[in-house]
Amino acid sequence: MYKTMIKKMPLLSLLVLLVISSSLVHSELLVKKQRFEMDNFVTFGGKTIKKVAVGFESYGQLNDKKDNVILVPHYFSANSHAAGKYHADDAQAGYWDAIIGPDKAIDTNRYFVISIDSLVNLNANDPTTITTGPSSIDPDTGKPYGLSFPVVTIRDFVNVQKAVLESLGIRKLHAVVGASMGSMQAIDWAAAYPDWVPRMISIVGTGQIDAWGSSLLEQWAIPIRLDPKWNNGDYYQSSAPTEGLTTALMFITQAALTPEFFKQMSDSPALAQQAAQKAALADINASPAIVTWLHQLAQKRVALMDANHLLYLVRANQLFIAGQQQDLKSGLQNIKAKTLFLPANNDMLLMPYLAQDAYQILKDQGKNTELLPLVGPLGHLNGVQLISQQADKIKQFLAN
Amino acid sequence: MYKTMIKKMPLLSLLVLLVISSSLVHSELLVKKQRFEMDNFVTFGGKTIKKVAVGFESYGQLNDKKDNVILVPHYFSANSHAAGKYHADDAQAGYWDAIIGPDKAIDTNRYFVISIDSLVNLNANDPTTITTGPSSIDPDTGKPYGLSFPVVTIRDFVNVQKAVLESLGIRKLHAVVGASMGSMQAIDWAAAYPDWVPRMISIVGTGQIDAWGSSLLEQWAIPIRLDPKWNNGDYYQSSAPTEGLTTALMFITQAALTPEFFKQMSDSPALAQQAAQKAALADINASPAIVTWLHQLAQKRVALMDANHLLYLVRANQLFIAGQQQDLKSGLQNIKAKTLFLPANNDMLLMPYLAQDAYQILKDQGKNTELLPLVGPLGHLNGVQLISQQADKIKQFLAN
Repeated sequence: MYKTMIKKMPLLSLLVLLVISSSLVHSELLVKKQRFEMDNFVTFGGKTIKKVAVGFESYGQLNDKKDNVILVPHYFSANSHAAGKYHADDAQAGYWDAIIGPDKAIDTNRYFVISIDSLVNLNANDPTTITTGPSSIDPDTGKPYGLSFPVVTIRDFVNVQKAVLESLGIRKLHAVVGASMGSMQAIDWAAAYPDWVPRMISIVGTGQIDAWGSSLLEQWAIPIRLDPKWNNGDYYQSSAPTEGLTTALMFITQAALTPEFFKQMSDSPALAQQAAQKAALADINASPAIVTWLHQLAQKRVALMDANHLLYLVRANQLFIAGQQQDLKSGLQNIKAKTLFLPANNDMLLMPYLAQDAYQILKDQGKNTELLPLVGPLGHLNGVQLISQQADKIKQFLAN
Repeated sequence: MYKTMIKKMPLLSLLVLLVISSSLVHSELLVKKQRFEMDNFVTFGGKTIKKVAVGFESYGQLNDKKDNVILVPHYFSANSHAAGKYHADDAQAGYWDAIIGPDKAIDTNRYFVISIDSLVNLNANDPTTITTGPSSIDPDTGKPYGLSFPVVTIRDFVNVQKAVLESLGIRKLHAVVGASMGSMQAIDWAAAYPDWVPRMISIVGTGQIDAWGSSLLEQWAIPIRLDPKWNNGDYYQSSAPTEGLTTALMFITQAALTPEFFKQMSDSPALAQQAAQKAALADINASPAIVTWLHQLAQKRVALMDANHLLYLVRANQLFIAGQQQDLKSGLQNIKAKTLFLPANNDMLLMPYLAQDAYQILKDQGKNTELLPLVGPLGHLNGVQLISQQADKIKQFLAN
């Protein structure tokens, strides 16, 4: 079926197919976004945000003892729509629908699964995202915060999640499971609140952002700052820095994929590779086919996104070190959870040495930890699109 | 000695040390830049450039039979200063001084070594670079070409080199040896003019740019186009797009290095990592230490560079396929040279599979070809800074 579809599909076919692949599995979950609000949230950096609102979704039923909770923090460009559909005819289910649902790896017949929109969520203009960040109205001025919004960290995402859980009467998790930036929240949860977290799964994840990662992340911020429309973050009354944001999305997409996948894409007839090369030889302003493809894909996504939010997400990631101590060893010292790391062996964004480092530290500390590789042509995105390959392992890890 | 120097050096210490490491070996070569001019150069794309001027340097003596010539095309951000010094007290020798000189791997007692500034050379404002590109004066208008300069290709670099060699009465090479973009010229030489090239060495090289490489290269072009000062390439009467160009240089530096090297850098006390993280938590406009380091390093380099030239270099690389046929197999079919590939095993820019692919095609075609890895913490830059590790192999390959 895949092959037939690919032939019939226009430009963007392959990645779109990948992005919507979860919907090919008929989702049995119907979900709705809920809203959580709190006053006077104090950030890890010591600043107060007077009003915080975030959205959340849940799948499955909270049991009477409230001890069947699995928290699923989301990745950089996602929101809390981890599984299910809002309406039966939605084109697309949540990003991990392949492993979250009745009888699936994260079994909603058994667990109460909850996912929460992060602070400074990238999809600030998406009506199904509820978040607080630089695009939110500052109650003191009645205008968007812009760059007056305080820097937030992965720990702040964790602390807002904790407030949401506590508002539901939850005092302990069964597990926390996250991919990429979701893995950062997962391991920071285990380090910051060890009594809450008996099980942690890190998928295409890391225990910290190193210098390489920090400057790679900066590559996504710089184009926004270069876009004259960015205007030091003050663009809510004028037009948004769409080209800068589109560029950032292009860079993110490339970093999340692999040379192997790009080769498959560019061999697709839809990309008209030869004609594009001819045009690129004739005109310095023409683009190679793969660049046009990345640009069009990014353009489709940016309308729902906010450029300042991307800058704040970049910063939250740049500051990440699980446990927030001087070094990672100290930060992981308090972890009580048994842990499972599933890095992708060809990940170009959070390279497998990062999960390996965290795993090795935990192992050296005598903790119950495991590491298994994810394979496939998608690199970092193996952790989202091809996660089913470890469904049995995840199910078994959660059951014990 | 290295350790003592590192301690005494300010910020930028480590990479600067690496960049100047060749000068720690006392160079015995004194060289001078020479000038070559030609009229009416017709590009691979079929456009005519009315006046072409390029600079070149040579090391060693051309013998009477003119058959002892080794051509060394340069990499992306370099010029023809491959070895030696212009003045005995120059701080820095040419980039490959470690392997070019009397009794060295490329022995100037034996060979006449020549290197030629490329068209659209990045260092257009460097007085020791002579090049023709968008910053040059168009004889038809008396003004800089800007984007009216035709797109040029690696083949055009090769053809200009061939004209220089022919002007010296040379009709055949002993060898062609290049790193990175220099390797592209080297293998294209072997494919385009097989009777000229009996030996070819490709260092951190490739036989073609694939889709991944093409869109990675585009990441260097986009920030320049986003900089409002770029003004569609028309900035020679106003101020240059320095921030866009600085960004491009930052991206290039990262791509040419490795996570391992970045970790070493950020552990250096000069980077004041902890203080920078604290500032980055307090202020969204502050930068992580590694970003500040990359930015400062790039800023020091851009004064001598031209932003349009970078766009044209990116395009020349995006269009590269050795032999300029439909596919690489056909392109390499005519090669008669024995070939040696030295990829770096941790190269993040031209990953080792690229050299491996070209090597495998040549092997399958029954040709004399070898591949050996370069090691070291510098990734792509192992091919420049740490090339001495294969000096014996290079010497022996050239002697037979």
